Amino acid sequence: MGAVKAKRMPRAVREQQMLDAAVETFGQRGYMAASMDEIAELAGVSKPLVYLYLNSKEELFTACIRREAAALVTAVRSGVRTGLPADRQLWDGLLAFFVHTAAYPHAWSVVHLQARTHGETFAAEAAAMREEIVAFVTSLIVVAAREAHRDPDLPEREVAGLAEALVGAAESLATWANTTDGVTARQAATTLMNFAWAGLSNLMDGRNWTPPAA
Amino acid sequence: MGAVKAKRMPRAVREQQMLDAAVETFGQRGYMAASMDEIAELAGVSKPLVYLYLNSKEELFTACIRREAAALVTAVRSGVRTGLPADRQLWDGLLAFFVHTAAYPHAWSVVHLQARTHGETFAAEAAAMREEIVAFVTSLIVVAAREAHRDPDLPEREVAGLAEALVGAAESLATWANTTDGVTARQAATTLMNFAWAGLSNLMDGRNWTPPAA
Repeated sequence: MGAVKAKRMPRAVREQQMLDAAVETFGQRGYMAASMDEIAELAGVSKPLVYLYLNSKEELFTACIRREAAALVTAVRSGVRTGLPADRQLWDGLLAFFVHTAAYPHAWSVVHLQARTHGETFAAEAAAMREEIVAFVTSLIVVAAREAHRDPDLPEREVAGLAEALVGAAESLATWANTTDGVTARQAATTLMNFAWAGLSNLMDGRNWTPPAA
Repeated sequence: MGAVKAKRMPRAVREQQMLDAAVETFGQRGYMAASMDEIAELAGVSKPLVYLYLNSKEELFTACIRREAAALVTAVRSGVRTGLPADRQLWDGLLAFFVHTAAYPHAWSVVHLQARTHGETFAAEAAAMREEIVAFVTSLIVVAAREAHRDPDLPEREVAGLAEALVGAAESLATWANTTDGVTARQAATTLMNFAWAGLSNLMDGRNWTPPAA
């Protein structure tokens, strides 16, 4: 058996190698088309060992979503240092997000696209990560509002809406950047920062856009 | 058989009723959980008639995605009148989008969430609609750039990125508005217009946000 022949290695290490191979395969070929044979081969282990460690294709995929979602949240959070000006915090967060999604395009495909394309269970895993990101972005917008001393004038619901808009824009741009030749993480972050900050900055200063009468 | 007992009605009309029932059922319960029995009952026809007209659950679902995607694109396009100022065109388009997604929340769930959650074939149907919307938004941004006489300074790729950001923000906000009590279509459109227009308006005037040195 491959499990016996394979070099001795701690289970935790070998499991990470299997997840690496699985993320690459799921991200590249899609959940449906990806086979456990391919994943085992890419990981350099036998298929029975993959089943022994991760139980099933479903559980392997769930483990991939969880690991990559956590890695993305960590990358964004650790990119931002509190105490800096609000626009700098937002920029750092966006740059960390686009750098991570560009560096790990298969991981981004797994958490954003694949996880939402193959049933409610996987979608719920990805949704939990998204909520964390929205909460973090909400906190960054609150920092910006505090900096502009506008807290009382920017209702909680408006902040929530802005955070949803910004996260949706970032998701869309990351997918676009990863599928468009020559768009760097820095360019994608700059486009979104220009779009978002110039808008947010005006809002914080009370320069709202006024809709025409209904 | 229900097909025989049911009142005489043109096939096209009866098919639309089946699609109405299917959209509501898929949107409310999810693609997996929705049963053909429920859909037939809600449509007031026999299950064999649903199969006779639409062949299978997969084809019925595909027909739902296509119809609702086309309806959304039509709603957005017909909400916008050319010749008006750029910000008014953008506002009209956003308002039409949020009014439509609020009025037909099950349809929005089908084209945006369900279609992307149950396999690549359905996801491709929804992606085709999304491309149409992105192309339309791109044309609106080009109008804004022309109005500001900035065409030569706003590269095509930047416009494409801004359109992706705006569409992603709109998708995210529509889902949020439909699942958050008391957020009206007009409020969602105003939030996004404030976010987007103040930002776009600055960009068109050459007031870019400058990232810190790498």
